Amino acid sequence: MRKFAEDRDWGQFHDPKSVLLALVGEVGELAELFQWLPAADARALAASEPLRTRAGEELADVLLYLVLLADVLGIDLAAAAQSKMTDSERRFPVSDVTGKAPG
Amino acid sequence: MRKFAEDRDWGQFHDPKSVLLALVGEVGELAELFQWLPAADARALAASEPLRTRAGEELADVLLYLVLLADVLGIDLAAAAQSKMTDSERRFPVSDVTGKAPG
Amino acid sequence: MRKFAEDRDWGQFHDPKSVLLALVGEVGELAELFQWLPAADARALAASEPLRTRAGEELADVLLYLVLLADVLGIDLAAAAQSKMTDSERRFPVSDVTGKAPG
Amino acid sequence: MRKFAEDRDWGQFHDPKSVLLALVGEVGELAELFQWLPAADARALAASEPLRTRAGEELADVLLYLVLLADVLGIDLAAAAQSKMTDSERRFPVSDVTGKAPG
Repeated sequence: MRKFAEDRDWGQFHDPKSVLLALVGEVGELAELFQWLPAADARALAASEPLRTRAGEELADVLLYLVLLADVLGIDLAAAAQSKMTDSERRFPVSDVTGKAPG
Repeated sequence: MRKFAEDRDWGQFHDPKSVLLALVGEVGELAELFQWLPAADARALAASEPLRTRAGEELADVLLYLVLLADVLGIDLAAAAQSKMTDSERRFPVSDVTGKAPG
Repeated sequence: MRKFAEDRDWGQFHDPKSVLLALVGEVGELAELFQWLPAADARALAASEPLRTRAGEELADVLLYLVLLADVLGIDLAAAAQSKMTDSERRFPVSDVTGKAPG
Repeated sequence: MRKFAEDRDWGQFHDPKSVLLALVGEVGELAELFQWLPAADARALAASEPLRTRAGEELADVLLYLVLLADVLGIDLAAAAQSKMTDSERRFPVSDVTGKAPG
């Protein structure tokens, strides 16, 4: 993403609030794919075409802007996610929360 | 994420629309960190504490729900992102778009 | 909203991208209220306390930032909504779309 | 909105989580209009065509889904917003917060 942006001299557009709005735009496109699907069928429908390919594209767009935002902010996204998982393992002990709705 | 959810029997809550709303919730928390920062200062402010740690946590939360959503949908997120990058390289040739606002 | 902001000299913070991110933040809080509710029960659960009051507050927050954004942009929100409804009546004729998922 | 939906037998699609995702989709479209505008120019650009009309349409779409969601939930949106404003007047006294970034 960094090279892609640099090659196009797009760094000038990539202040954090702009990239964040671009991320919101992509989350919106993802939402539009799923909004009217019956909740019980959404998973099965997303496993079949044409939704499968479209969902993959929108998930990818969200990821790419998330990676770009992390890069713009100088944040190591993989380390942050690993740290958050470790934290969640501790905050939500299996014995306390099993089968209850996530917090 | 899959093991974390299975250990807590949370798979029952993880239909696509629910996980997508959880992703929206985390994007909202990320937006709240940046909303009132002056656009020109946002990058520098996010490089310092306490914003730096908070931004890393929220970026991580977005990533974790994105990964969970991809898992629920059976989508290979890394492959989808790679494919999207290849596609974007082709759709936005350096010679056409350099320095113009992204599409 | 305009008087509320002027009284506090908050207009300086209310550029469109900032207000839009604030709107995103409130939509995120709304999503967090509903994310783990079973789809079939969400309506009934939201009709009872404590969710009823919380949902009203979050819907209000979204509306207030939407109204503020329209004011910042000089857009007559009521007229825009009326125009959009007239347009939708024409684009989605009853005879064509009845009972099919919205477009 | 209620009559529009009833005329098309769309009530069956309008469970709260689906309408909320539709709202997210429209907020995403609004974000896409503003994402790459320089923060300092966004207001002036939105006052001119073609952005002015497009922004009005997207703001209207957000409002219409917000009104629909309130209707589905049986919430009086105007009363909720009035109550929230009264509450905010109290929580953010002019003497304390003037000129500081909103909370």
